Amino acid sequence: MSRNQILAVDAMGGDHAPAAIIAGLELAAERHPQASFLLFGDETVLRPLVDKTKRLRDRATLRQAAEIVSGDMKPTVALRLRDSSMRRAIDAVLEGEAAGVISAGNTGALLALSKIVLKTLKGIDRPAMAAIAPSSKGDVVMLDLGLNVVCDARNLVEFALMGQMFARIVLGLPMPSFGLLNIGSEEGKGHETLNIAAATLRESPIGKQFYGFVEGHDIAAGTVDVVVTDGFTGNVALKTGEGALKLVGELLKRVFTAGPFARAGYILARGGLNRLREWLDPRRYNGAVLLGLNGVVVKSHGGTDAMGFAHAVDVALDMISNDFNRRIAEGLTAMDSALLSAAPEVSSHD
Amino acid sequence: MSRNQILAVDAMGGDHAPAAIIAGLELAAERHPQASFLLFGDETVLRPLVDKTKRLRDRATLRQAAEIVSGDMKPTVALRLRDSSMRRAIDAVLEGEAAGVISAGNTGALLALSKIVLKTLKGIDRPAMAAIAPSSKGDVVMLDLGLNVVCDARNLVEFALMGQMFARIVLGLPMPSFGLLNIGSEEGKGHETLNIAAATLRESPIGKQFYGFVEGHDIAAGTVDVVVTDGFTGNVALKTGEGALKLVGELLKRVFTAGPFARAGYILARGGLNRLREWLDPRRYNGAVLLGLNGVVVKSHGGTDAMGFAHAVDVALDMISNDFNRRIAEGLTAMDSALLSAAPEVSSHD
Repeated sequence: MSRNQILAVDAMGGDHAPAAIIAGLELAAERHPQASFLLFGDETVLRPLVDKTKRLRDRATLRQAAEIVSGDMKPTVALRLRDSSMRRAIDAVLEGEAAGVISAGNTGALLALSKIVLKTLKGIDRPAMAAIAPSSKGDVVMLDLGLNVVCDARNLVEFALMGQMFARIVLGLPMPSFGLLNIGSEEGKGHETLNIAAATLRESPIGKQFYGFVEGHDIAAGTVDVVVTDGFTGNVALKTGEGALKLVGELLKRVFTAGPFARAGYILARGGLNRLREWLDPRRYNGAVLLGLNGVVVKSHGGTDAMGFAHAVDVALDMISNDFNRRIAEGLTAMDSALLSAAPEVSSHD
Repeated sequence: MSRNQILAVDAMGGDHAPAAIIAGLELAAERHPQASFLLFGDETVLRPLVDKTKRLRDRATLRQAAEIVSGDMKPTVALRLRDSSMRRAIDAVLEGEAAGVISAGNTGALLALSKIVLKTLKGIDRPAMAAIAPSSKGDVVMLDLGLNVVCDARNLVEFALMGQMFARIVLGLPMPSFGLLNIGSEEGKGHETLNIAAATLRESPIGKQFYGFVEGHDIAAGTVDVVVTDGFTGNVALKTGEGALKLVGELLKRVFTAGPFARAGYILARGGLNRLREWLDPRRYNGAVLLGLNGVVVKSHGGTDAMGFAHAVDVALDMISNDFNRRIAEGLTAMDSALLSAAPEVSSHD
């Protein structure tokens, strides 16, 4: 079994841990017969859960971790817990026992611990959080989703490079296009930082895939495969889009339960409606990835169920088996370092 | 006829001007029997269009304006045109001939001209663009939507005051709640500016209606009646939400045209589906308002049709007949000026 197929799992993180975590791993294990898992947490709780599963029993190794990083714990406090399931899972990546780590626990703590333990990839100034969202033309990648409230042009250029590589691996696109999120598509729009980043990207080795500026509506339209932005804007945009989709879902439910004709209509159109619901299901887009660290780090939504957690495991295993970090490192080398250093450090929102 | 009921109209602005403008005015005129209109543009083109309408014929006055501000014209160029339909319509507000102005033309030019000609309201540092969006609990107001890429805490406090007043008048809510858009709801999240603005608002005369920080998904959830943010974030969020709604609309169309059963299902549920579509129709939310100027200034979407333009006219006339600007001025007086000046000027994204 190669090292590349081992995923370290924080089995105690998330609202429905450890039951949903174990159930999710079992689902993912079926899709990834080569993968195996290192589970960190309270062995007395985990052992009976794992023993009940057929697929995991032989492919999961349990490791005792006495402490738990709670959802509302400050990252500074979490950093002091040496024996938390989250910390121990990240340590396993540092020690080369696993190629990546997944947690449905506290996002701030996962980021802080990952940065301190694993350190950022050589050549990357700051990690970014990326995720996949639905669009009219298929799935799109968005980053940063909240790690970096203020970004300079160099950060945005690095996000573009990492996001593009992520789209190649996770969406399987050979030449993903990408755009910088702005409030207009014309040159000169928005912050100066965006314009500096755009100029740098145009001249870069990935310049041919650079679409230019995109606007909010371009995300769902699928205008580009990768939407690059600072963490504040990306976080607001992702949550706004999710909120809008949820609103329509609720309204449709009201429409189809409004009376006998509507109910009958639902039954007739049920096949397509169910496929639509499945396609837009937030669980399918679960698994935000912390890009730019020495190791694959995936954050599952804390409130997700087994199916959602399994999707996040898929993302982690895809990145691991495709050697994401080595390819990012190669991409950075290919990026003319002179070009990167030509981008002055200007705050994203000046 | 009181001065308060007269709206100046840039009859030549927008993709479908002047036909859609005239047709939209006719629709709005039916709903506002007290209103009358001052139309600026090419009289030889406008006269026959107006003469064909029953309702407008007697309530519209035509004024010749030889020039047109085109959609791609730079604001600096538009400022030099003294006889454009847009400029002349704004001048009519300055000269007291009309209480407000509406245009479906170039947004940047409309803002630049309005600011220079009408000036900002006493006590308001910068105008903001506001609009209405759908939510699970009814319509919500969002601002700023793109005028101010960088905002300080004082700007955000003023936006909150203006947005709240706008919600009272246009949505008819006696005590609208409002929140500051952020990437988390806990204190200390996001930019420093947001935290300073929040502290100021909590102590302000409208502090009781201040919900605190809201996130992207709170917009469609209707957590607050008014969502306050800087122009960059607001513009991205609004367009992202619109894009998501449009995506679902397209997908539903595909579902219901996929085969005979789905078509029959659509027919059975048609009543509710049509009501849903009407409710989410972007035309119903047309009419972004430039708040904080000496005069009501409404921007209609450039690509809208007669129905969309009529909704924007509704918004303008509601603000005019409710004396929006006088009430904002009163609100500013009520706001302890010491409180406002206590908010240091820090860039929104530092």
